[in-house]
Amino acid sequence: MLAPGSTIGILGGGQLGRMLGHAGTALGFHVHIYAPDAELPAAEAATHVTRGAYEDAAALTAFAAAVDVVTYEFENVPASAAALLNGLKPVRPGVKALDVAQDRLTEKDFLRSLGLHTAPYAAADSGATAEAAFAALGGREAIVKTRRLGYDGKGQVRARNAAEAAAALRDLKAPCILEGVVPFAGELSVVAARGLDGTIAAFDAAANVHREGILRTSRVPAQVNTAVGAEAGRIAGVILEALDYVGVIGVELFLAVGGALLVNEIAPRVHNTGHWTMDACAASQFEQHMRAVAGWPLKPAARWADCEMENLIGDDVLNWRAIAAEPNACLHLYGKSEVRAGRKMGHVNRLYPLGGLP
Amino acid sequence: MLAPGSTIGILGGGQLGRMLGHAGTALGFHVHIYAPDAELPAAEAATHVTRGAYEDAAALTAFAAAVDVVTYEFENVPASAAALLNGLKPVRPGVKALDVAQDRLTEKDFLRSLGLHTAPYAAADSGATAEAAFAALGGREAIVKTRRLGYDGKGQVRARNAAEAAAALRDLKAPCILEGVVPFAGELSVVAARGLDGTIAAFDAAANVHREGILRTSRVPAQVNTAVGAEAGRIAGVILEALDYVGVIGVELFLAVGGALLVNEIAPRVHNTGHWTMDACAASQFEQHMRAVAGWPLKPAARWADCEMENLIGDDVLNWRAIAAEPNACLHLYGKSEVRAGRKMGHVNRLYPLGGLP
Repeated sequence: MLAPGSTIGILGGGQLGRMLGHAGTALGFHVHIYAPDAELPAAEAATHVTRGAYEDAAALTAFAAAVDVVTYEFENVPASAAALLNGLKPVRPGVKALDVAQDRLTEKDFLRSLGLHTAPYAAADSGATAEAAFAALGGREAIVKTRRLGYDGKGQVRARNAAEAAAALRDLKAPCILEGVVPFAGELSVVAARGLDGTIAAFDAAANVHREGILRTSRVPAQVNTAVGAEAGRIAGVILEALDYVGVIGVELFLAVGGALLVNEIAPRVHNTGHWTMDACAASQFEQHMRAVAGWPLKPAARWADCEMENLIGDDVLNWRAIAAEPNACLHLYGKSEVRAGRKMGHVNRLYPLGGLP
Repeated sequence: MLAPGSTIGILGGGQLGRMLGHAGTALGFHVHIYAPDAELPAAEAATHVTRGAYEDAAALTAFAAAVDVVTYEFENVPASAAALLNGLKPVRPGVKALDVAQDRLTEKDFLRSLGLHTAPYAAADSGATAEAAFAALGGREAIVKTRRLGYDGKGQVRARNAAEAAAALRDLKAPCILEGVVPFAGELSVVAARGLDGTIAAFDAAANVHREGILRTSRVPAQVNTAVGAEAGRIAGVILEALDYVGVIGVELFLAVGGALLVNEIAPRVHNTGHWTMDACAASQFEQHMRAVAGWPLKPAARWADCEMENLIGDDVLNWRAIAAEPNACLHLYGKSEVRAGRKMGHVNRLYPLGGLP
């Protein structure tokens, strides 16, 4: 267990790093942010900030010397940076989780190897292989996704026939996978933590709504039947164990029309669909993550309220005045100076008594 | 209403400023700490820090120019600093509240003028007047307190006879008041907020235990009868109105053996006996205070849990490992590097279901 006064290093300085910073300093840790960006929402929630590139070995080495443990707020940490840091200080959740989550093909293969369900998929690295992959998936609609570096719907194209799949691959200019479109009844996620001692604590599953590839709302409870909720938690546990994971993970799921749960993707970090825990639980996903990476015991993941989390995207944040006046709305803003379309500016958690989610 | 991105200035950089900083930045404000101390627990929760003396008019003027509103985490802000800042930017809760709270005699006279009860008291500024004051209070045990600058039991001496009162006054070397010792059944407090629009929201009364002049625990509910709880809230409201107050106030009360409530003292700031609100309410006293000083509507002050807050004083903090493992314990540490006897290092809120406080 890291003692209070120890320093937790975080790669990345966005809103997730910011909320991790708040949670970590509240527990008595110091927080050191490492990120290349000019504007760092996490900076005002941190003790120390290093502005450096993820390719700058000297700066990374100095950062490692200044911290007791390293974590990250995004899964696309370059492998070279992760490997360098891992040789100097514990990196949690861990290099294996990064490897798996950075490549959609590796990720899908990994999930299948655990006996978990996913949408049908096939790899493609050229227009010709894209046509073959499209056919292999049954010749129905597919989504072409870059294997690496996609987020918030970026790096994704819908293909209704083999020619569109081939064109998508040429446009995306990167190795891809094609995923078969599965008719689903809903999008769920589970945010769960695993401690250094192997203990697992899963928050209740959330029902999520995306629009234009970006998360809009998460609702808890997800209002699925009990067996589905339990299965979602079990799936998260299987993944955490297989990765020998330490920290919080986000697992995105499709609830297929027949009731099966397919794993869509995993995010080896705190997750947007877990922001509701900040106000509806005694310990948020951010506190759980900092506890885990510090080797502390996890807190119970119980909820005391129902909650709908709404992301404030772009101009949504201009409604702050109305939201501030809502009695049950807990507002969280990220301190970003410029409002841009599609930019996550904050979120609001609307609380309801248990059983009272409208 | 101050828009997100505005800057709230805070005089003082201790743990209260730190928790205000966390709450303010989470709402999207920037927070600028002004304080003279070398070690500032608030610094790692703030956007900007100015290290300056409260007598440095140039530094205070620059600080005022950099912020949109000024608040403070302690009541002994020098009158000259408050007056200077008040001419430049809104100062909230306000100069009147500081005037009243900085002098125990002014404070007691003010409370009596509102029809509120206090312990019997009399002013003394010399050994001779101390003897007369002791006699005027009935010749029973009294506490001699400096009129200004006492806290956590400092600047207080118990006197069992007139000679001891006179000696105390000579030792304390400052204008004092003598307070008659009232037999009381318990110590209570109310932490309440008043918005810029005049709305008042009082948290539930807490039952407090002090040892050696320092708060040890606050328990909510206070387990007094309903009428006493309501009267405590009413008293806070009367004081807030009379001061045309904006922000959070702490009102310390004695519950006399006969059931009457005597006001012991008021603190024109967030208050140690309100720390339980961080985990047992949807909006803490720190968020309420930042909302009020920004001109935002207050949140409801309802509780979702029972709570016992325990201060971690000096070596208490060395128990962090055991506290971290308690499932219902919410730990808050202040990032202070040195453990010293009597120093507030953090606090822990132990949560229980409503009605379940042991």
